[in-house]
Amino acid sequence: MDQQTYETGLKIRSEVLGKEYVENSMKSADDFNKPFQEFVTEYCWGAGWGRPGLSRKERSMLNLAMISILNRPHELKLHIRGALTNGLTKDQIREIFMQVAIYAGVPAGVDAFRQAREVFADQAKK
Amino acid sequence: MDQQTYETGLKIRSEVLGKEYVENSMKSADDFNKPFQEFVTEYCWGAGWGRPGLSRKERSMLNLAMISILNRPHELKLHIRGALTNGLTKDQIREIFMQVAIYAGVPAGVDAFRQAREVFADQAKK
Amino acid sequence: MDQQTYETGLKIRSEVLGKEYVENSMKSADDFNKPFQEFVTEYCWGAGWGRPGLSRKERSMLNLAMISILNRPHELKLHIRGALTNGLTKDQIREIFMQVAIYAGVPAGVDAFRQAREVFADQAKK
Amino acid sequence: MDQQTYETGLKIRSEVLGKEYVENSMKSADDFNKPFQEFVTEYCWGAGWGRPGLSRKERSMLNLAMISILNRPHELKLHIRGALTNGLTKDQIREIFMQVAIYAGVPAGVDAFRQAREVFADQAKK
Amino acid sequence: MDQQTYETGLKIRSEVLGKEYVENSMKSADDFNKPFQEFVTEYCWGAGWGRPGLSRKERSMLNLAMISILNRPHELKLHIRGALTNGLTKDQIREIFMQVAIYAGVPAGVDAFRQAREVFADQAKK
Amino acid sequence: MDQQTYETGLKIRSEVLGKEYVENSMKSADDFNKPFQEFVTEYCWGAGWGRPGLSRKERSMLNLAMISILNRPHELKLHIRGALTNGLTKDQIREIFMQVAIYAGVPAGVDAFRQAREVFADQAKK
Repeated sequence: MDQQTYETGLKIRSEVLGKEYVENSMKSADDFNKPFQEFVTEYCWGAGWGRPGLSRKERSMLNLAMISILNRPHELKLHIRGALTNGLTKDQIREIFMQVAIYAGVPAGVDAFRQAREVFADQAKK
Repeated sequence: MDQQTYETGLKIRSEVLGKEYVENSMKSADDFNKPFQEFVTEYCWGAGWGRPGLSRKERSMLNLAMISILNRPHELKLHIRGALTNGLTKDQIREIFMQVAIYAGVPAGVDAFRQAREVFADQAKK
Repeated sequence: MDQQTYETGLKIRSEVLGKEYVENSMKSADDFNKPFQEFVTEYCWGAGWGRPGLSRKERSMLNLAMISILNRPHELKLHIRGALTNGLTKDQIREIFMQVAIYAGVPAGVDAFRQAREVFADQAKK
Repeated sequence: MDQQTYETGLKIRSEVLGKEYVENSMKSADDFNKPFQEFVTEYCWGAGWGRPGLSRKERSMLNLAMISILNRPHELKLHIRGALTNGLTKDQIREIFMQVAIYAGVPAGVDAFRQAREVFADQAKK
Repeated sequence: MDQQTYETGLKIRSEVLGKEYVENSMKSADDFNKPFQEFVTEYCWGAGWGRPGLSRKERSMLNLAMISILNRPHELKLHIRGALTNGLTKDQIREIFMQVAIYAGVPAGVDAFRQAREVFADQAKK
Repeated sequence: MDQQTYETGLKIRSEVLGKEYVENSMKSADDFNKPFQEFVTEYCWGAGWGRPGLSRKERSMLNLAMISILNRPHELKLHIRGALTNGLTKDQIREIFMQVAIYAGVPAGVDAFRQAREVFADQAKK
């Protein structure tokens, strides 16, 4: 493990997904999934998100489109929250999901809109 | 239908997924899905799993990777249980899902780890 | 927007998915998803389903196979209901899902059968 | 193997995909892929296509939609030829692929149209 | 068809993918695929790309990520060219494809990089 | 970058995919794809394949199944060669691809068998 890349990853992951969420993920990790948590933190968040060349806002845009197509609702909701944190507006999120519907098909768009509305409703309650 | 292949399939399916589960599936089958239950038992479990050339442990390894990518959580959980029955350790399951994350992307890995932890938690309760 | 295509779309969508469902979708739409609801109604239902050349029954057959493979359970259930409305029998639905299992794999078939049985059970209660 | 199901499969496969093509597939099979050729013939063509409940034309319709989405151009071309043999018109094939574009996205539709035009151009040469 | 949306779509499509390419697509269209060409132009390029809310550069970013995952090399190459036209740099394209590799897996990234290098090599020849 | 993980990755990658192939990949890398080549070497081959817990033979088995489903023929051929290097027999490869056909559908199996036969034919020529 490259300690510096890991630290960078942990910092970015916490800033994008929320400190509380990341601390819980790390604390609840056991022998089974700890190596995976560390791997994701170092490679995805440190070596990936830590790279220059795209802003966090742009990386969030890509993720909303990609994770919609990859059909992973749990991760999509996390990254819709992260996208708002990174400065995307609801209008931009709508445009991304409409483009998803055109390129990946209407059902992918329908699911993305449903999940976004659940996230917005959750946040309105708080 | 080839009766012998069907019988072989029923036996292997029961040994891997559990006698109770398979008996319930068969008993609860109605006119609508009975032909499918028989088809799966004969072809997938008899003509597929019944072949020589790979051990059950190896077939379970393949299934964990494939079903993670195919994104079918209900089936994945069944086959995580089956993999434990077939002798895979939790450490091996972790390695499979880390390889899934690398080749099919981090969100596929995240979902696979979450589902495995749910299965392990369920089993710990019993 | 082409008003006539939109009206055609709204009519077909209501006839296939149910008037109540479509009215609810339209009424509950907010600034965020209203453009998407209109887009889907005009393009998918008006410019798509509104075309000659295939019967509604045939379009339902295609949708059951496609949405099973696209792995969108919420949409699949809607379209199983729509398929019954469009005159497909349960026996035809079974045959479609068995063909899905052969061409897209057993887990896709298993999920499609499970979702169909949930729809049928729901309808039997009413 | 169920000999009768296998024979049925061989007959249907030859009628749909062409006698010459199937004979070549079988003749060129070696130790490596012969078990697979036999499995596909029995399982997919005998136990699947051999079932009552859907016409061959309907099964071809499903296959064009499914194989477009599964993104398998070589198989798609075979089944476009088979669809013409089973009585689908070019207009019906266009409608199927337009529905694919709506439900699975524009790039899936673009590829399906390109492959169909290649098949039609090939046949026009003969 | 909404004539104005169609005209907008034709203009944007020509500006992004190149006038020559679009004119050839339209001219070579026959009875079989003309309705699809018109549909794509109106729906994808007029009603989709014609919307405000995202810049063309941002829409290109999304498309590179989405079409890589959708695994459509022919379309991906077109949109890599379009992305350069819309002002994306090679460095930004690299960052997008590295993010694809992390979220959709290494093989999706390897293919995207290979196709981009083919496009760049083609352009260097001219 | 963690230099030691990178070195481990370079070594394993060369042993599995062939020294010549990996040296060519590295030598032909330019400003555009060099960061990706290094990322894949460190992350996929060092931090992934370099882990204990599964043998190389087992990792090859998983890769053949996964890359078939991910539908990446260029990578699949590389990994069929790698699988032979890692000690898988042709009979084991056949069994893996038959299981792919059952779980991911017949067209995925057909393509995997075709690509394997191309690799075997290439190797027979040398």
